Amino acid sequence: MTEIGRRDLLAGAAAVALVPGVAKASPASDRTAVMAAVDADKDAGVKRLVDWIAHPGIAAENWRMPEAVDYTMGILKDAGFQTVKKIPTSGQPGIFATLDSGAKRTLGIYFMYDVKQVNPAEWSSPPFEATLTDKPGWGKVLVGRGAVNQKGPEMAFLNALHAFKAAGKKLPVNLVLVAEGEEEIASPNFHEIVAVPEVLKALKKTDGIVIPSAWQGANGNVAINLGAKGPLEFQLISSGERWGKGPKGDVHSSTHAMIDSPVWHLVQALNTLVEADGHTPAIEGWFDNVRPLTAREKELIAQSAAAMSEAEAKAAYGVKMWINDEPWEKALERLASQPTVNIQGLVAGYTGPGGKTILPGKAEAKLEARLVPNQTKKEAEEKLRAHLKKKGFGDIEVIVSGGYDPTETAENARIIRAQQVVYEQYGAKTTLNPRLAGSWPGSVFTQPPVSIPAGQFGLGHGGGAHAPNEYLLIESTNPKVQGYAGATKGFVDFLYEMASIG
Amino acid sequence: MTEIGRRDLLAGAAAVALVPGVAKASPASDRTAVMAAVDADKDAGVKRLVDWIAHPGIAAENWRMPEAVDYTMGILKDAGFQTVKKIPTSGQPGIFATLDSGAKRTLGIYFMYDVKQVNPAEWSSPPFEATLTDKPGWGKVLVGRGAVNQKGPEMAFLNALHAFKAAGKKLPVNLVLVAEGEEEIASPNFHEIVAVPEVLKALKKTDGIVIPSAWQGANGNVAINLGAKGPLEFQLISSGERWGKGPKGDVHSSTHAMIDSPVWHLVQALNTLVEADGHTPAIEGWFDNVRPLTAREKELIAQSAAAMSEAEAKAAYGVKMWINDEPWEKALERLASQPTVNIQGLVAGYTGPGGKTILPGKAEAKLEARLVPNQTKKEAEEKLRAHLKKKGFGDIEVIVSGGYDPTETAENARIIRAQQVVYEQYGAKTTLNPRLAGSWPGSVFTQPPVSIPAGQFGLGHGGGAHAPNEYLLIESTNPKVQGYAGATKGFVDFLYEMASIG
Repeated sequence: MTEIGRRDLLAGAAAVALVPGVAKASPASDRTAVMAAVDADKDAGVKRLVDWIAHPGIAAENWRMPEAVDYTMGILKDAGFQTVKKIPTSGQPGIFATLDSGAKRTLGIYFMYDVKQVNPAEWSSPPFEATLTDKPGWGKVLVGRGAVNQKGPEMAFLNALHAFKAAGKKLPVNLVLVAEGEEEIASPNFHEIVAVPEVLKALKKTDGIVIPSAWQGANGNVAINLGAKGPLEFQLISSGERWGKGPKGDVHSSTHAMIDSPVWHLVQALNTLVEADGHTPAIEGWFDNVRPLTAREKELIAQSAAAMSEAEAKAAYGVKMWINDEPWEKALERLASQPTVNIQGLVAGYTGPGGKTILPGKAEAKLEARLVPNQTKKEAEEKLRAHLKKKGFGDIEVIVSGGYDPTETAENARIIRAQQVVYEQYGAKTTLNPRLAGSWPGSVFTQPPVSIPAGQFGLGHGGGAHAPNEYLLIESTNPKVQGYAGATKGFVDFLYEMASIG
Repeated sequence: MTEIGRRDLLAGAAAVALVPGVAKASPASDRTAVMAAVDADKDAGVKRLVDWIAHPGIAAENWRMPEAVDYTMGILKDAGFQTVKKIPTSGQPGIFATLDSGAKRTLGIYFMYDVKQVNPAEWSSPPFEATLTDKPGWGKVLVGRGAVNQKGPEMAFLNALHAFKAAGKKLPVNLVLVAEGEEEIASPNFHEIVAVPEVLKALKKTDGIVIPSAWQGANGNVAINLGAKGPLEFQLISSGERWGKGPKGDVHSSTHAMIDSPVWHLVQALNTLVEADGHTPAIEGWFDNVRPLTAREKELIAQSAAAMSEAEAKAAYGVKMWINDEPWEKALERLASQPTVNIQGLVAGYTGPGGKTILPGKAEAKLEARLVPNQTKKEAEEKLRAHLKKKGFGDIEVIVSGGYDPTETAENARIIRAQQVVYEQYGAKTTLNPRLAGSWPGSVFTQPPVSIPAGQFGLGHGGGAHAPNEYLLIESTNPKVQGYAGATKGFVDFLYEMASIG
């Protein structure tokens, strides 16, 4: 704890001296006062996160969503946003909030207030009762659903605003915040939020928008994402009812000698979706609009490969080898460039212990595709449906539950350059990652009508997103990685940097 | 109710006159007294079944099994068995019971005391609180797990013994009963029970063995099975851990761009198990020892097709067409002759509502194969393993949870001929079915070392085995189909017939 505070101050002092922007926009005394406020607020800042985790909303299950949006609106008001409005959509409501500090520039902030589903039985502590525990090699971590994805980093950002308030200092930029409650179901209605005239007008005034994140690796380094893949979330449902073959409901399995199986039908349909290698999408026309990596993108990936630990990544994912046992750089090229079709879940017939001699009347696969430029969600959905039809699986129900296009932001955008400055200021080496393999609805911002740069920013570390025992580092024992107060300080400096960078 | 009673008596009177065997072995007065006892015991007989259903044991879940075996032993004692012994096995215990009435001949009876799993949410009434309800076209039915598979018919048999006791009449045959508690998990240890010297010795003295059943269709007709397919129950589990590719646990789905998927691996393995038609087994060598239907078997199936209602079968199974939209007779040939590989269940990753963006570390399919003569369980298991290995899926774990060989009994066996006599006596036309598509461990009896004929017998009707709302007809409104008392009377006459038939 002491160690982190000391290092932050040193890093901060160095920054004031070395980074002209910081010195220009904020007298060092202002910054020092705000940073002291972060330190004073440290325990309260963690408490705010614990409380937020205790107010979850799971869009996939439509569970506690009204409570989740109201709670989130409350914490935005507490952090100093002057207007905080609920924006209705066809699904879960969004939030539009503004903080006008009279500054010259305006920064956009994107929040998600929903979290991923949980299976409490798989957790070592209750997922919504965030618990501090020791994680060897990292330090004290907070375990809870949303810890890193995305409440932890979002609250670190809000804690930075609390620090400005406590220190009596004005924010160096104005803020426009939009939040959605359906990120974890692939943002099916987020475009409706940004299309609201008032929201659109406010967003277009910003220099770009970021989602708070916490992606330092064990070596402290950070990859700055210049874009992200776009997801297409869908379910494939095979049923005797719809097929006209096979049983309507479950029947005794012995009848399979004369009755078709909707489960085999689904297995055969699925089998057409990837090549024999088990990973390359085989949907007809899938690669038509895929733009290969550019020379610059490959160069950036080579830099990333050098900066990131392969061993750490393998350990984190619990894998012995990448696809085709390829080397690290090649695997990272794949991660950035390869469109995927992934099975998230299979459920048919009897799923309990042992067996049960039935011929199921229905089978479901839950999948998601990840799209790369210049694929679009619309194109992907159309090609998927056409492919299934052509292969003889037109009866299989395709339920698209969400998705959006891939997103790209130029490396010379202010939000990208400001990130590079601040990360370096905290001793975190940066690499530019052409594309995040995961997805976030950045395309809603980068594409018309909004058309602004979009990215992520945040110091710190967490893991287990979408998995049991999701965690966020609170007190780091690794001198290269920021704890929670360090992450908050990073946001303070990012706001200063966005105000001053050329 | 009155209607059934009257018809039974008429049928009984006709039988006494027409069937020499009945008149020879049992003075008509004895039989009349026993039948009167069945009528007097009617409500108590149903109550015994309701009570038995309320004492379930589910081997697949190892749920309430000790209670289930003890309860079953109790009802055997109540019905008049003089010795009732628990027979330990490597799994759930079996039961060995004898009733020596000093008769010349001995009949074997096979019981199963376990029932299939239930999902109470799918039932219209609690599955273990058997409930009488009206089923249009049939009459009053008892809804509960085990109603037809197999407690209902088994209790109808025991109720026949109660009637002999109440009437003070000796049984015309001695009885040797063996029961197991693992029928629904494909009898993995049943061979151990019949191998116990005392059990084996007793079984070898019998004229054959039957399992009580209730298989009258709406037209009252019954198919007598001359054999049954043999099952091979197995699970296929694909895991990153075992494969050496893919993740050990669930990871974020975006990583699928560089990490292999154990789920796709399973889908591809499954896809090799059946042909493109979606039903013909494609496991290498699967058909090597399959004996095609003989001319006599085809002749018998043609008779069955004429005697059974296709429309009723389609309605019962909820299907619009058989495989390849084949005609009824062809479908029934398929049912008897076609070995199958069926998927009972699929479970991988996220199985709840909506999606969850994970790349699962593990995927499981629950399957069962049904074997026909002259396939064997041993051969099938070896070929399955060899096939998976050859196709590149040797890492996939194959867990064989049960199974046994197909079974066959000659049509001139006493237990077959006695069935024909008694069914006809009750106005039920009979057909000989070369082979039941479902399975029962008859091969344990028909093969060495026991080597006795084995079959099913029972009047009455039920449905929904292995499905929700399983039922047994109690009071028939269909003059062609026996209710529960009629089924009990059928067993009385079957015992007489087994004593007297040449």
